[in-house]
Amino acid sequence: MNTLWSQRYAQRTQRMQSSAIRELLKLTERPDMISFAGGLPAPEVFPVAEFQAACQRVLAEHGPQALQYSTTEGYRPLREMIARHMARYGIVVEPDNVLITSGSQQALDLIGKIFINPGDRLLVEKPTYVGALQAWNAYQAEYIAVPLDDNGLRTDDIETALRAGPKFIYVLPNFHNPAGVTMALERRQVLVELAHRYGVPIIEDDPYGQLRYEGDHLPPLVILDGRLHASEGAPYSGNVLYLSTFSKTLAPGLRLGWVVAPAEVIRRLVQAKQGADLHTSTLTQMVAYEVARGGFLDRHVRLIREVYRERRDAMLMALAKHFPAGVHWTAPHGGLFLWVTLPEPMDAAEILKAAIDERVAFVPGASFFPDGSGQNTFRLNFSNATPAKIDEGMRRLGGVLHRAL
Amino acid sequence: MNTLWSQRYAQRTQRMQSSAIRELLKLTERPDMISFAGGLPAPEVFPVAEFQAACQRVLAEHGPQALQYSTTEGYRPLREMIARHMARYGIVVEPDNVLITSGSQQALDLIGKIFINPGDRLLVEKPTYVGALQAWNAYQAEYIAVPLDDNGLRTDDIETALRAGPKFIYVLPNFHNPAGVTMALERRQVLVELAHRYGVPIIEDDPYGQLRYEGDHLPPLVILDGRLHASEGAPYSGNVLYLSTFSKTLAPGLRLGWVVAPAEVIRRLVQAKQGADLHTSTLTQMVAYEVARGGFLDRHVRLIREVYRERRDAMLMALAKHFPAGVHWTAPHGGLFLWVTLPEPMDAAEILKAAIDERVAFVPGASFFPDGSGQNTFRLNFSNATPAKIDEGMRRLGGVLHRAL
Repeated sequence: MNTLWSQRYAQRTQRMQSSAIRELLKLTERPDMISFAGGLPAPEVFPVAEFQAACQRVLAEHGPQALQYSTTEGYRPLREMIARHMARYGIVVEPDNVLITSGSQQALDLIGKIFINPGDRLLVEKPTYVGALQAWNAYQAEYIAVPLDDNGLRTDDIETALRAGPKFIYVLPNFHNPAGVTMALERRQVLVELAHRYGVPIIEDDPYGQLRYEGDHLPPLVILDGRLHASEGAPYSGNVLYLSTFSKTLAPGLRLGWVVAPAEVIRRLVQAKQGADLHTSTLTQMVAYEVARGGFLDRHVRLIREVYRERRDAMLMALAKHFPAGVHWTAPHGGLFLWVTLPEPMDAAEILKAAIDERVAFVPGASFFPDGSGQNTFRLNFSNATPAKIDEGMRRLGGVLHRAL
Repeated sequence: MNTLWSQRYAQRTQRMQSSAIRELLKLTERPDMISFAGGLPAPEVFPVAEFQAACQRVLAEHGPQALQYSTTEGYRPLREMIARHMARYGIVVEPDNVLITSGSQQALDLIGKIFINPGDRLLVEKPTYVGALQAWNAYQAEYIAVPLDDNGLRTDDIETALRAGPKFIYVLPNFHNPAGVTMALERRQVLVELAHRYGVPIIEDDPYGQLRYEGDHLPPLVILDGRLHASEGAPYSGNVLYLSTFSKTLAPGLRLGWVVAPAEVIRRLVQAKQGADLHTSTLTQMVAYEVARGGFLDRHVRLIREVYRERRDAMLMALAKHFPAGVHWTAPHGGLFLWVTLPEPMDAAEILKAAIDERVAFVPGASFFPDGSGQNTFRLNFSNATPAKIDEGMRRLGGVLHRAL
């Protein structure tokens, strides 16, 4: 239908597109499809009973408050809980350094709104989180993309990228989405030191940090940066914005994430959030707080780790069993995703068509590359299917790959 | 604290400011304050028990779904319910014409994102909803402001404004926020016809349409526009985007609003929403649907109308009793707000300081004017205080005004 709106779209819409992942999710809703395309947590581990009890308590004890407008900054006890949680990882911040967002995605959007002028260049990983590209394309960002390998962001030539004058650096150091890799400690140190030397601030996106299935916890960039600025302890320097979420540890349907930032940045983000949605749902914030408090979240994260570790192992085993030689995949130490590289010049988008005929789905890698490269890569999610489904899915996909090779 | 972020804000932040209202809300949290500043519904009429029952049912019957990611467009049964609800007002649209937003505020933000280029001019009322200005200032909009009177938008000289080439027209025809006035039927017709003639599309913001306390329901612009395009019935032309919300009829703490738009605009809004917050909370959408369905929402709206009508009457009576001669106020037929005009050159911001000393608060009018005029005006909310509090509050405020005059 042609309407008076048709000729009136803003220029920035030329850079905005529907996420291939979300469009695919629709395609893969057929019940006989085994989909590794989404980034969905396992619904069978959602703590439904705890949510029922929490809804009852919140509404019985604070009903009118839970249903009323609330502050843009977020529910104070939840911000305090997040500050305490961060302190356990060594990140010493005040509740006033925490802004509750409507999912981590909103944090990316608000950051784009307050920092990105059209044409600004951002230093990102290649591949990087597609949601960040979606959020920032709308602000007409350009990208300086630095490749990853199995040890995360490659820092050997990062000074060239820093000299190109990026507005900020955006990285996912833990269990990268989509690549599944983790940035090695020495690279984290190099990155933080060079960022400091070039005066470029960092956005550290850490949705999966708690979901580690093997190996030792590595200090986040926000800590390493704090150590640069102080001889003892790691006070918050304010130069690293740290993003995380309850989507992977409690439930994504709540849409609850958070940003840790210096007070002046929080103030600007709050202004942007007032115009964007006034505040995040009071009810979901209070219910999430009620579910998480008193140690439940820690216990629940331990359960998730067990379930997801088993699924990761099942996928690694199935890949070794069913995938042809010449195909490379990452072996993630945590998170939800694993990254497959096909021999050149294979095209994952073509493979996907054949895969859907076999009722198995994944996300082709190109949408994670700001420069549209990566045609021979794809992402597999291992959190959302049982080990048996994972084996069957990889068997189907392996068959497609064998025939294509 | 000065950080690497301090010098990196985007140009658009120069136009973004914290809402005076929301900052004031903090100031007026003192327990002895009687505040008419916020736009808060009466918490004592929130259907808390119904929300408790709905949370139980939704989580017991669809727990994993309610806690999982869901589509950007919104929960299908809720979109269908909204389409049916619109049909009762004569607005014939499909569920695919409905997008669920994180409060009506998000609809304003997404509209700004897909339509407004820096410098674009928007035809707005003077005064207008401050949240729209906040949302659109971030996209560097300019405004063509057309004054209101007691019969709503003045259409006598609107062709001058239309000739200035606005991208779209933004109006609140029913029980205007902040002015409390309603656009007369003949003005609605003039506006729709002239918009059609000049080829300018309209955004109709209608958060309060159901909260009418006297007089007859007036057809919304979206209907009148439909009639222009068809000899019989009022099919949806797509030229009017219609916005509404559950914030005033169910609970604002849910953050649930909606946009009705042609399919092509919905598609663009969905792209923008993917980058903004992926989707609105699945849980709150499902719970709101569960509370609203089966006729409950209609019954509840009748209760709200009774309570708010009583409060409006109490405020009108208290104003007549306590306010000095020379002060003018509007007599709203519905909604939550009433608008006061002081004799020039009185300054409502100065009056507010004295009022706060007397422990009574309101919102000065200037923030509702895109050109910063309106210093001698202020907004009073009548939904959030009991009749007794309203009388006491107006007594205090009347005293301040008597001394100032």
